[in-house]
Amino acid sequence: MDPKTYAEAGVDIHKADAFVARLKHSARRDGHRRLWPAAGGYASVYPVHGNLAVALTTDGVGTKLLVALEQNKLDTIGIDLVAMCVNDLLCVGATPSAFLDYYATGKLDERLSDDLVKGIIQGCDQACMLLVGGETAELPDLYQNGHFDIAGFAMGTVSKESLITGEHLTAGDKLIGVASTGIHSNGFSLARKLVPLESPLRKSLLNPTAIYAAPVVRLLNEYPGCIKGMAHITGGGWTNVTRPQRNLGYVIEHHLPVPEVMKFMAEKVSAEEMFKTFNMGMGLCVMTSDEHVDRVVNTFASSQLQSMVVGEIAGKKPVLTIKGALGGKDIVLNNSTK
Amino acid sequence: MDPKTYAEAGVDIHKADAFVARLKHSARRDGHRRLWPAAGGYASVYPVHGNLAVALTTDGVGTKLLVALEQNKLDTIGIDLVAMCVNDLLCVGATPSAFLDYYATGKLDERLSDDLVKGIIQGCDQACMLLVGGETAELPDLYQNGHFDIAGFAMGTVSKESLITGEHLTAGDKLIGVASTGIHSNGFSLARKLVPLESPLRKSLLNPTAIYAAPVVRLLNEYPGCIKGMAHITGGGWTNVTRPQRNLGYVIEHHLPVPEVMKFMAEKVSAEEMFKTFNMGMGLCVMTSDEHVDRVVNTFASSQLQSMVVGEIAGKKPVLTIKGALGGKDIVLNNSTK
Repeated sequence: MDPKTYAEAGVDIHKADAFVARLKHSARRDGHRRLWPAAGGYASVYPVHGNLAVALTTDGVGTKLLVALEQNKLDTIGIDLVAMCVNDLLCVGATPSAFLDYYATGKLDERLSDDLVKGIIQGCDQACMLLVGGETAELPDLYQNGHFDIAGFAMGTVSKESLITGEHLTAGDKLIGVASTGIHSNGFSLARKLVPLESPLRKSLLNPTAIYAAPVVRLLNEYPGCIKGMAHITGGGWTNVTRPQRNLGYVIEHHLPVPEVMKFMAEKVSAEEMFKTFNMGMGLCVMTSDEHVDRVVNTFASSQLQSMVVGEIAGKKPVLTIKGALGGKDIVLNNSTK
Repeated sequence: MDPKTYAEAGVDIHKADAFVARLKHSARRDGHRRLWPAAGGYASVYPVHGNLAVALTTDGVGTKLLVALEQNKLDTIGIDLVAMCVNDLLCVGATPSAFLDYYATGKLDERLSDDLVKGIIQGCDQACMLLVGGETAELPDLYQNGHFDIAGFAMGTVSKESLITGEHLTAGDKLIGVASTGIHSNGFSLARKLVPLESPLRKSLLNPTAIYAAPVVRLLNEYPGCIKGMAHITGGGWTNVTRPQRNLGYVIEHHLPVPEVMKFMAEKVSAEEMFKTFNMGMGLCVMTSDEHVDRVVNTFASSQLQSMVVGEIAGKKPVLTIKGALGGKDIVLNNSTK
């Protein structure tokens, strides 16, 4: 029987959240006030000198690895790895600087590792960041033959002026959706069970995750303050939209094109579960006031990225309302829902 | 049959090196001149503002994880993870600032993850650094039940003045060995096959890796320039000694106490292989000119760390000579040997 929810596919997001919360709590006891608070907790912002801080984040590509292995196509998974980290850095207003990778495997395979590195370097190039190091661990007893894992670490710089705190967000601000290139790098534990191996859609699961660095850095530099909040739509799907400021209401009523593979999965999974798991065509959500909308849309267009106003911040009820979701009923997600 | 070498235990260090070299080469084509060259390549040093740079590094604990799982003792493996990263940061002259962890598992186990975090926080406390974030990935299909991996990422700050480049090292400079707390976090693929499960020595394999941050940061701050080179003795054992400056000769003729577990393994493995795999009682090697020796030794003593002059830089032949190794013949390691 096909799994119908992410939990049925074996992933308990709430449990993971609880662990992360506990971790943050334990660490906070000592000196965490030193960090600058940044919108959505997408990256940690550590001040290093006067007005200057570095933003730090880490991520992996999760189960997408298994699909890449199954299709024997490892040359773009490095782009996904960089994208997952870099798009998070952008959400606090940081300019990506340096990247490191951790690659652990049962037995080092040169073709495979070459392909991996090729993708990582391509991703770094797209993000205008430098691959500055990494760890390659050959762990014959820990990883099964043919299995491996990769993790990425990214560092960016952010000035007090370009820091995105989310505190300037207010009712009436526009939500600009920026197109994804597919399911990016999350929801794979579910997707790989729903999309049949023989389906032509299976291939599209591997489309590399979009890296939004070039246009976002341009906006940060040329129009400081124009981006008031930004949400990278990753694990948790559209529940990410409310991360930059949990105490506001968000309404989305227009949709970017939904990728075919998601339409296919939506036949088997409830609309609410779809929006809570996948990006549904929107890889990034940029929040700005009315007067900056054209500027933002044009900047993304100049990087060949489709974007449009999908909704706005409305009211004080802290929920995300998705109007006419997938052509059906409205969906209301509580801002603490994940 | 017991494996006699690290290669027989399934780890091909040369292959891993080749991959890392390739990776560095590929990445270097673009902008790598931006990095400040630092001794031994222990961390990448990325300038962020005038005289100030951040040092970045990543590492894991490798097969030590399996021994921790086997003994159902996960509460200090986080100290190892922090130590592996932090001691690398120190070797370029950086002061540790922030740490992030990546934790991937088949199924999140709360007791296990609590224990892990407890160790990580303890390690961060010892290193006076802040745990600022992390990624917890639940990947049911990638990791076998009960298996998991962790990677660490550390950031420190370093000024142009405190940067250790290795370029001031010269004949006559003293090598000060600082005691390890056991085998630390490398050589485990071999050690777990040589030390019997029922041996009381098996337990000692899990001794947490020493974190040398407090005394080293004190030396860096109070006596800038006093440390001319520093080697964290990790994967590759004593071949690390020559990393700060490959074009010099190094002679070691005195030994810190060799931990029991290494004496035990040395009965089955050649002395050369032992020194090329394990720290042999010396977790860190600090290189300084004659006049600073007492200062260095006293500073480590004030942190309850035994240290002593073990040798010196001698001659121009780029080799490491270990005199009377393990009470036997001299061992000569080529500086490019690893």
